[in-house]
Amino acid sequence: MHSVAIVFHSVTGTTRSLAQSIATGVRAEQIEALELEIFGADIQHGRYENTRLLDQIERADAVIFGSPTFMGSVTAQFKSFADASSERWTELRWADKFAAGFTIGSNYSGDQLSTIQYLGVLAAQHGMLWAGLDIAGGYDESGRNRLGAQSGLIACTTDAVVHPVDLQTAQYLGARVARLVKKYHSAG
Amino acid sequence: MHSVAIVFHSVTGTTRSLAQSIATGVRAEQIEALELEIFGADIQHGRYENTRLLDQIERADAVIFGSPTFMGSVTAQFKSFADASSERWTELRWADKFAAGFTIGSNYSGDQLSTIQYLGVLAAQHGMLWAGLDIAGGYDESGRNRLGAQSGLIACTTDAVVHPVDLQTAQYLGARVARLVKKYHSAG
Amino acid sequence: MHSVAIVFHSVTGTTRSLAQSIATGVRAEQIEALELEIFGADIQHGRYENTRLLDQIERADAVIFGSPTFMGSVTAQFKSFADASSERWTELRWADKFAAGFTIGSNYSGDQLSTIQYLGVLAAQHGMLWAGLDIAGGYDESGRNRLGAQSGLIACTTDAVVHPVDLQTAQYLGARVARLVKKYHSAG
Amino acid sequence: MHSVAIVFHSVTGTTRSLAQSIATGVRAEQIEALELEIFGADIQHGRYENTRLLDQIERADAVIFGSPTFMGSVTAQFKSFADASSERWTELRWADKFAAGFTIGSNYSGDQLSTIQYLGVLAAQHGMLWAGLDIAGGYDESGRNRLGAQSGLIACTTDAVVHPVDLQTAQYLGARVARLVKKYHSAG
Repeated sequence: MHSVAIVFHSVTGTTRSLAQSIATGVRAEQIEALELEIFGADIQHGRYENTRLLDQIERADAVIFGSPTFMGSVTAQFKSFADASSERWTELRWADKFAAGFTIGSNYSGDQLSTIQYLGVLAAQHGMLWAGLDIAGGYDESGRNRLGAQSGLIACTTDAVVHPVDLQTAQYLGARVARLVKKYHSAG
Repeated sequence: MHSVAIVFHSVTGTTRSLAQSIATGVRAEQIEALELEIFGADIQHGRYENTRLLDQIERADAVIFGSPTFMGSVTAQFKSFADASSERWTELRWADKFAAGFTIGSNYSGDQLSTIQYLGVLAAQHGMLWAGLDIAGGYDESGRNRLGAQSGLIACTTDAVVHPVDLQTAQYLGARVARLVKKYHSAG
Repeated sequence: MHSVAIVFHSVTGTTRSLAQSIATGVRAEQIEALELEIFGADIQHGRYENTRLLDQIERADAVIFGSPTFMGSVTAQFKSFADASSERWTELRWADKFAAGFTIGSNYSGDQLSTIQYLGVLAAQHGMLWAGLDIAGGYDESGRNRLGAQSGLIACTTDAVVHPVDLQTAQYLGARVARLVKKYHSAG
Repeated sequence: MHSVAIVFHSVTGTTRSLAQSIATGVRAEQIEALELEIFGADIQHGRYENTRLLDQIERADAVIFGSPTFMGSVTAQFKSFADASSERWTELRWADKFAAGFTIGSNYSGDQLSTIQYLGVLAAQHGMLWAGLDIAGGYDESGRNRLGAQSGLIACTTDAVVHPVDLQTAQYLGARVARLVKKYHSAG
């Protein structure tokens, strides 16, 4: 069965909520969704050690990366995970998997794009194929992608609660990546 | 007298409104503000030709660059101006001037940061000193910087009218750059 | 027959050389390559008008965007083309096509990444799927990707001649995108 | 006495070498240079705790941030430090200090700009004033800034030894920031 790994770090729980909605979207397309959370307990002196999680990513057909935007980019915890992926990088063992990204911040336009662009750089290093949001901001009938970013899902919370439209957009992103996996792996 | 040049391209008039508010902020600090608009008529085959405008920038103590965010960055017209500045680049004739940037888009987080980061790259090429917004999003008593960007002023319009708080923030940015000019040129 | 459009602006001819090598790589995979050059003559007052070229892109299965890095990003001429693509953006008529990017500059690390990231933002706005270079810098037996960028092809010229390894890497990028097209469109 | 803090994380020692050359450049201008290294031992579960270092930054007139480029951005260890600076961010206690950045990677153009741009975003969040390299790549008589980046110092090492020209450029960057501090604080 095809699968999509959702790898994320959450501080207050809002990123986890987005990850869950993405997983819902993936599953709605009859694709397995793996919710892989990054925990501080796996980080020693700034180094992330969790071979099992890295192996799970390797078996997935697509990976959706997520982190809150904190001081202008992904959290240090997420970056620890990214750094740990360097072993797989030299052999390009994640190449040609689809990839996407999501983030949330406490402002509408508070450097979330910086986070998404970093996730894109990380995916490019691994030779992955980046899928953004194919919803032109302001042109969706359901109002999804309310903040208008397309390189990835940018969400905003002001009170530690995720906006329902952002959750809906997250679900859409999960479904989109799942559909890409189905479309492009049906050839076999 | 010290002066701040505001160099911008405007399509619908909203960027011009922001430029005017920035100028108001500059003048409130008893510093001259030059509003220098980039016009399509000065562009032939993609090349901008207006030596006078480039000379005016050269005489200013600081430069604030502005453009709508269009298809993910500054407009082609603004880029034509930037390309034309290459002659001054090799001799670094704008070095050590303070610089700042502003942009507006029709979404809250629709790649405006990409525009601001480009303006920062342009300023860095010229050896300029980049000043962002020293207002932490969500922490200002007057509510300024409502979208939370700090690398530059990011505004958003949904109906071709600029939000009054964005204009207020623009005024603040102008005043900030003017104060930097006064502070750092009072030594001589 | 499947096709890849290579859309580029060239100033000195080096970007055109890279485009030709990319086309060679595409054709080696038995996929049609369309070399679509952006000319200043099609730009009036900063606006690009060439419906035929935009239509050709629409019929292609993948698009590889290229521009020299000039004053920190794509040239104004390329940006005029990007701005003209906004009509297709609102309807997302290029969505789900594969996309990639290439650039060249006169320094090893002179903001070419800024250009590539802009091309990625443009592709994301169109809902395209971004493919970088799946060659870890320094780990290729043939020495390709000598500068080590992976988000796109970054080349460098010091004397208006393109380095043979950069041309070889360009050919590889064209072949890679062609293979992605073949792999992912064989399902139908 | 005026001072410049150089805050960096080093993995193999090359970033430390650059930091030392920057310090040499600062001291040549009769300004105190503080070399503040970030150590993994101060990071617990991804969180950096070292109030003394943050206090030292607060007393400095300028801050030069440095990190190797690892998996496309600053190291997780550096990011832990950046995340820890968030307390000072809400009060903007580092505002109006000059800031600059440096990085090193094992490729000529392997995403070092992504690192520098992140450092710029971090500085902007703190309301700092960003100074890049005022040396146009290829136009310096001494050959400094051999890689041509200007948003910050980008260096490259292939054998864990820093290129002498990169060290020379680092020294220049330190001197430049020190001169800015002297020029702009002589007014008082």
